[in-house]
Amino acid sequence: MGISAASRTEIDFPTDPVSLRALIRGGRYAGQTSGLAPGRVQANLAILPADWASEFLLFCHMNPKPCPVLAVTSPGDPVFRTLGADVDVRTDAPRYKVFREGVVVDEPSDLLDVWRDDLVAFAIGCSFSFEEALIETGLRIRHHEQGLNVPMYVSSIDTNPTPRFSGKMVVSMRPFRPADAIRAVQVTSRYPSVHGAPVHIGLPGQIGIGDLSRPDFGDAVAINGDELPVFWACGVTPQSVAARAKPPLFISHHPGAMLITDLLNHQLSVL
Amino acid sequence: MGISAASRTEIDFPTDPVSLRALIRGGRYAGQTSGLAPGRVQANLAILPADWASEFLLFCHMNPKPCPVLAVTSPGDPVFRTLGADVDVRTDAPRYKVFREGVVVDEPSDLLDVWRDDLVAFAIGCSFSFEEALIETGLRIRHHEQGLNVPMYVSSIDTNPTPRFSGKMVVSMRPFRPADAIRAVQVTSRYPSVHGAPVHIGLPGQIGIGDLSRPDFGDAVAINGDELPVFWACGVTPQSVAARAKPPLFISHHPGAMLITDLLNHQLSVL
Repeated sequence: MGISAASRTEIDFPTDPVSLRALIRGGRYAGQTSGLAPGRVQANLAILPADWASEFLLFCHMNPKPCPVLAVTSPGDPVFRTLGADVDVRTDAPRYKVFREGVVVDEPSDLLDVWRDDLVAFAIGCSFSFEEALIETGLRIRHHEQGLNVPMYVSSIDTNPTPRFSGKMVVSMRPFRPADAIRAVQVTSRYPSVHGAPVHIGLPGQIGIGDLSRPDFGDAVAINGDELPVFWACGVTPQSVAARAKPPLFISHHPGAMLITDLLNHQLSVL
Repeated sequence: MGISAASRTEIDFPTDPVSLRALIRGGRYAGQTSGLAPGRVQANLAILPADWASEFLLFCHMNPKPCPVLAVTSPGDPVFRTLGADVDVRTDAPRYKVFREGVVVDEPSDLLDVWRDDLVAFAIGCSFSFEEALIETGLRIRHHEQGLNVPMYVSSIDTNPTPRFSGKMVVSMRPFRPADAIRAVQVTSRYPSVHGAPVHIGLPGQIGIGDLSRPDFGDAVAINGDELPVFWACGVTPQSVAARAKPPLFISHHPGAMLITDLLNHQLSVL
């Protein structure tokens, strides 16, 4: 899902989130947002009809580690009023995926044609925020160093189901030396609204992951012999669960092309 | 180092720490203190002549994880004024070890004959406090369940040395399933004055531990295939470092026979 280097290097990205959203809204960028607007919270998106949204909110509430809800819009209102200045979910993510009955039917760069008066949008926390906190504490993120996407796996951990939403938890993996893994637990525990502490460490077979070199999403990364794999609940979970429920309409951001908010990552720290 | 069951069952231990210290001070109990005075902080002891004490304080300051100092007495003053009502280091631990030039010369039940006007006593945090916090959060401590002492190992981790004090860090080990190990990191991180977060997890060979079934102190415990060994800095470290420095006089509590204070374990939580 990477964008070409050319498309990113052609653009002189503003660092302030308002200008960056204006650039994206203007159709001038439709790629990944990792590393853009440093320090700002980026969000996963899930958009559903109102008659599915309240149950989805319940599902998120019952599964806060994979589905930490940052904000919810009112039905038909495309603006996230708590995430910044004029954050319009229809236009401000670089690219989207539109599912009908669980099948991807379009990958547009805006939702102006597909928006409806009954749609409810969820902004869900993203690992970019806790990765920034890990880097600030001096840790190094392997997939960043290797220029890859984080490896993600469909685990054997069941989410807590609602009548229409259920499925396995998707987890992301970052390898660390043991002392750094302990530090990573401490740092990410401060960020429950962006997946929080890891859900597993060290024994992938226990959560149904047989081969770390074959992730279900993203890229495999090197794991050294002195490192443990550390697993966090992943924001791909709500997307896969929502698509699996086959609602008549479901829209997510395009992988890696997140909604950039005005919130500071540091504002999400509970301590 | 266990005491006979008879000696503990013969006594109707008061739960309040003042009465319990009075009982111990009266010479009516000289055994281990695990489980006595629930909720109260118990402390490791290290007592040194004043001309060694300031360097020992520096050593502790440089090595806060194995040597978290709870209180220090003034030279010659046997009373820990911040640890409770009339806490006398000469009489209020059940039993002591007296070292001269690094060699154990006596294991008395009080220090009235050996006390000197130049002695300085250190109360150092003990894992009993964080074990209580782990139990309160629903975790189970393997060596408790097996009725054993915690396994301890001399690791390959160097302490930060001062001119006269140096040596390897002693670590204690408790096995947990991965999700419980993550919870244990969170809970013990709140207790930096009683060793705090683990120093290592999962890969004992990396810290010089070749065989978990052969601890250097304490007892081997069962580790199941779905568990990781989790290692904490241990309060045996300051004792072994002090004995190794061969001061003319050094006194510690007897292993497991701690000084019981009036402080509540919950008071040590930083969050």
